[in-house]
Amino acid sequence: MKKLNVGIFGAGRIGQIHAMNLVTNPNIVIKRIVDPFADKLKDFEKQIGIKLETDPDLIFNDDEIDAVLICTPTDTHVDYIVKSAEKGKHIFCEKPVSLSDEESMRAYKAVKKAGVKFQIGVNRRYDRNFAYAKKLIDEGKVGDLELVRVDSRDPEAPSLDYVKSSGGLFMDMTIHDFDMARFLTGQEVVEVYTQATVRCNKEIEGIDVDTAIINLKFEDGTIGVILNSRRAAYGYDQRVEAFGSKGTTMVENDLEANVILADKDGYHIPNPEFFFLQRYTGAYNAEINDFADAVFNDRETSVTIEDAIMAQRIAIAAKESLDSGKPAKVRMID
Amino acid sequence: MKKLNVGIFGAGRIGQIHAMNLVTNPNIVIKRIVDPFADKLKDFEKQIGIKLETDPDLIFNDDEIDAVLICTPTDTHVDYIVKSAEKGKHIFCEKPVSLSDEESMRAYKAVKKAGVKFQIGVNRRYDRNFAYAKKLIDEGKVGDLELVRVDSRDPEAPSLDYVKSSGGLFMDMTIHDFDMARFLTGQEVVEVYTQATVRCNKEIEGIDVDTAIINLKFEDGTIGVILNSRRAAYGYDQRVEAFGSKGTTMVENDLEANVILADKDGYHIPNPEFFFLQRYTGAYNAEINDFADAVFNDRETSVTIEDAIMAQRIAIAAKESLDSGKPAKVRMID
Amino acid sequence: MKKLNVGIFGAGRIGQIHAMNLVTNPNIVIKRIVDPFADKLKDFEKQIGIKLETDPDLIFNDDEIDAVLICTPTDTHVDYIVKSAEKGKHIFCEKPVSLSDEESMRAYKAVKKAGVKFQIGVNRRYDRNFAYAKKLIDEGKVGDLELVRVDSRDPEAPSLDYVKSSGGLFMDMTIHDFDMARFLTGQEVVEVYTQATVRCNKEIEGIDVDTAIINLKFEDGTIGVILNSRRAAYGYDQRVEAFGSKGTTMVENDLEANVILADKDGYHIPNPEFFFLQRYTGAYNAEINDFADAVFNDRETSVTIEDAIMAQRIAIAAKESLDSGKPAKVRMID
Amino acid sequence: MKKLNVGIFGAGRIGQIHAMNLVTNPNIVIKRIVDPFADKLKDFEKQIGIKLETDPDLIFNDDEIDAVLICTPTDTHVDYIVKSAEKGKHIFCEKPVSLSDEESMRAYKAVKKAGVKFQIGVNRRYDRNFAYAKKLIDEGKVGDLELVRVDSRDPEAPSLDYVKSSGGLFMDMTIHDFDMARFLTGQEVVEVYTQATVRCNKEIEGIDVDTAIINLKFEDGTIGVILNSRRAAYGYDQRVEAFGSKGTTMVENDLEANVILADKDGYHIPNPEFFFLQRYTGAYNAEINDFADAVFNDRETSVTIEDAIMAQRIAIAAKESLDSGKPAKVRMID
Repeated sequence: MKKLNVGIFGAGRIGQIHAMNLVTNPNIVIKRIVDPFADKLKDFEKQIGIKLETDPDLIFNDDEIDAVLICTPTDTHVDYIVKSAEKGKHIFCEKPVSLSDEESMRAYKAVKKAGVKFQIGVNRRYDRNFAYAKKLIDEGKVGDLELVRVDSRDPEAPSLDYVKSSGGLFMDMTIHDFDMARFLTGQEVVEVYTQATVRCNKEIEGIDVDTAIINLKFEDGTIGVILNSRRAAYGYDQRVEAFGSKGTTMVENDLEANVILADKDGYHIPNPEFFFLQRYTGAYNAEINDFADAVFNDRETSVTIEDAIMAQRIAIAAKESLDSGKPAKVRMID
Repeated sequence: MKKLNVGIFGAGRIGQIHAMNLVTNPNIVIKRIVDPFADKLKDFEKQIGIKLETDPDLIFNDDEIDAVLICTPTDTHVDYIVKSAEKGKHIFCEKPVSLSDEESMRAYKAVKKAGVKFQIGVNRRYDRNFAYAKKLIDEGKVGDLELVRVDSRDPEAPSLDYVKSSGGLFMDMTIHDFDMARFLTGQEVVEVYTQATVRCNKEIEGIDVDTAIINLKFEDGTIGVILNSRRAAYGYDQRVEAFGSKGTTMVENDLEANVILADKDGYHIPNPEFFFLQRYTGAYNAEINDFADAVFNDRETSVTIEDAIMAQRIAIAAKESLDSGKPAKVRMID
Repeated sequence: MKKLNVGIFGAGRIGQIHAMNLVTNPNIVIKRIVDPFADKLKDFEKQIGIKLETDPDLIFNDDEIDAVLICTPTDTHVDYIVKSAEKGKHIFCEKPVSLSDEESMRAYKAVKKAGVKFQIGVNRRYDRNFAYAKKLIDEGKVGDLELVRVDSRDPEAPSLDYVKSSGGLFMDMTIHDFDMARFLTGQEVVEVYTQATVRCNKEIEGIDVDTAIINLKFEDGTIGVILNSRRAAYGYDQRVEAFGSKGTTMVENDLEANVILADKDGYHIPNPEFFFLQRYTGAYNAEINDFADAVFNDRETSVTIEDAIMAQRIAIAAKESLDSGKPAKVRMID
Repeated sequence: MKKLNVGIFGAGRIGQIHAMNLVTNPNIVIKRIVDPFADKLKDFEKQIGIKLETDPDLIFNDDEIDAVLICTPTDTHVDYIVKSAEKGKHIFCEKPVSLSDEESMRAYKAVKKAGVKFQIGVNRRYDRNFAYAKKLIDEGKVGDLELVRVDSRDPEAPSLDYVKSSGGLFMDMTIHDFDMARFLTGQEVVEVYTQATVRCNKEIEGIDVDTAIINLKFEDGTIGVILNSRRAAYGYDQRVEAFGSKGTTMVENDLEANVILADKDGYHIPNPEFFFLQRYTGAYNAEINDFADAVFNDRETSVTIEDAIMAQRIAIAAKESLDSGKPAKVRMID
């Protein structure tokens, strides 16, 4: 039976994760991995058992490669997407598509024109907890949605350098939460209102914010809110509540262990899984194998380029609201 | 040793609770209870063992009465406060003081002029859970506050009639949450932004809202949010989170029983205590005995008339923001 | 309407609790309280508003007294029960009836002969959590019972003096758990096997044990186990699991507050309610008012003298098993 | 760098799991897999990318193979162990070594004589939760151990056929719990007492039991208890409590998702992970890679043949106690 040939652009942390997760997929052959720093990745090369290469054209021009994973720096995404689409390759791309709506729309058009499959890397949709909550909502267990809350907080504030090139809190971090809000409700966000301050790292004052509450209004009048912080002392905090006419569903954190220690000072439970690599181990695996499956079985991807574009546009509106001090509308794709 | 003589205006549900909670206080004598419907309250009369009377002047003019509890309908509060203050009696008054800031300020001035003690009935501050969270915050366990969240949802939407005379969601229900936000942070709320809709009872469309998210900005830049619904299918939902530089503290619901049933469909845990009378049984007891203690030991009350006024002013601003679609400033007491 | 007149023997800690819990019962008048140390109980006298007396005959000979509460030291219980029964008074007696089966049977016969109502003070049956579990079991939610577990641990090991006069771990402490096992299953325990050691207070070596596992076999073959310790560093530990063909039900501890603190070291939750006075506040109230209700409405008491006798007999068998190192049968009432 | 060559006997469910878990270990080459039903395992062959063979001698006689995994039926274990040991191959063997102590000792002697490394497949020691509890105990967080409890229940009662060839409840199922008790305490079990009945599947009456409580006495006088059922309606129940002088530690079940649904009927949480393949996914991975690491780095294995022998001997004593109705001593290795 024919297998699917995959090429991977970028063998950094996330590229390696996707590669290892595809190794045991019986329908997949990882044909090529390219990375400009291939010579620094000998350990990974040994583990994956594939010789790393440095020239991306080796993938673009390899007609046997059916699909690509784009795991390179953000500013290269659009070019890689456009070129891959032109070559008729299906595309999995890490988020965000780009930091600019114009650029992202260029990718959007290329993908649409080529008719290739496209999946954006919003791993959280594949987390078993969020997926379970989505299922409860879809089954009508919480009734009509009325209030949605996303708590999303990183364990440690990023460096000033990271912040400068990140595209800002909303594009870099909250974008996952905007996607989660769209995913859980199955609706577009039409308006946002932002409150935000600098509390975690005073160095970024005037450059970005790190503590934020972003209000969301959905198509049908459902309202929601996202609470962000770049630094939660107790670790990576990823919770959601979706409240409706029949009840509510609450996604709690996965902890390092389901063990309680009780002593004279109380009951003590371990912290949440440290960060996204730990918390979303299973989600990363499910995500990339779902993409492989979509390509292999020629079906639609579960997360589309429209999803990518819309999460970015909410991020843009969130920034507008912060700047104006007033609610801002979110622009729809025509 | 001298005991404290107390007079109670109003022997409805809440008046009865306060009366029964004072019965076992060894420093208190309930001297008089007046209620215009005394003849309908024979059961209570039998239980409390005190003959109910109907004329409020019996309390106002009884020089042996040191303190009064005002448990009558809201529109009588200010007159009762003013008259009690003029008679030199210490005052415990159910919330709100009134539905109008002007009226409330009239009560405020009377209390200040007479120099009597005044406590407003915001029972939640006395709930052991919220009190515990406040203690953690005051001890610095969560560090500097950065994000505050209050989830406050009633189990059943009120009738149209109730809504019409309630003063509206913010004055009737959220006022408790505004007080909670001030209590936990120890700060004034300086600005609010409101999103609100009608989801629970369509009859009230155009009259009031029943589903709301209210953003709060505090003096020092801390931001917060309140999530309200008039109808939580799973019962009375009263949670809080206060997040800061060192961690977070989360007040969870008290449940009807700490018992788990595990069967083929999962783990099942009882609903939260049904409503405020159940959830806040202990808080009502602590509240009224704390007032009695403040009067008995001639110390300041724990919740003042300023607290009453400020919670109302946040409610007024929340309504302004809803009407304007923009953030609204909260007016301070000069 | 006629009220019920009650006399109380013993105004120590538990006698005071029962008295205060009856104060607000509209059907009850506490007519007399006797205690040999009445002159040391002025604070309580002031609070309850009843003049304490010292001669028990004032109660025995008061024909208006319908029911008595026996809250005196254990070694007086039987005499008080017999005399009260002879005087036709209904009886609530703190556990245990006595430390000897012969003595307890003397009380049993007196009660049966007089036909008075009798309730033994096993407050835990009235705890809302255990009552909730019992209800789940009775409703068939866990199916046929198969395994039962009772965790029961005190927060602090008692003094050597207390241990010497306590009747031993099984009669003093586990007796509550034996009653719980009978209550939850609705069955007699027919055989026990005991493992026990001294771990908490080495002084008691050779006199008593303080750490024990007691296996139970019930009439229908259901098996169970009790895990006891006299000293749980984290506080009063009172849990139960009843496992059956359809699932399991688990009673968890009530904590000092339902509040979580999350910080760099994990999630922290307050300890269980400190000891029985805190954990069983509500249970004590429900218990004594249920007894009052049984007498007032002339119905059977919920916990009978048979219950008292059988819990003691299991305690006796547990001690036998410990001494012999083999399982021991429990003697039934003929 | 030299890699470790591994041969696998048996490509059934557990053999496949170990194989897939070794695929991504960069130090390991799976050189041969033999299974008599190789022709029925084409799917697995495709996934693992290794041609399955049928003759075990291909492994025994392959001098390049450093270590073997024995994943064949229990009655073949000892022969495979002895032969592998004689060939100087390090051994990972699924539990139990055999159903007879004499046979197991034959394997024990062969391993000792050959000086090869040996690891028994008690995966639970590698579960992150049990490992976390062990760490807490070793760090002294619960003080000196006093009471230990293991709850271990399967989701579904096995068939009569399975039961007949299983070696009985204690050898088949409780053996894991005996190992857990030894693992957590770091002590030998010196005496056991068994209560057991048939409650899950009446067909097995007279052949085996399916509901059991087994008491344990440890070397230093610590006491413990195991609660077993072959059928927990709510799923695979794997909990532990280790109680000591400073507190207690409780391992809770891992659930299918950390998500709460609250509705009018209460709070609902998903069931535990269905069975051992789900619950112990991570443990299986850690276990086999730990064995690979022990061989690769020439260090002792974490779970030895002594561990295997002792768990079996406790199982033997548990059966003796059940038959005699009295406590039974556990025989130590001389």
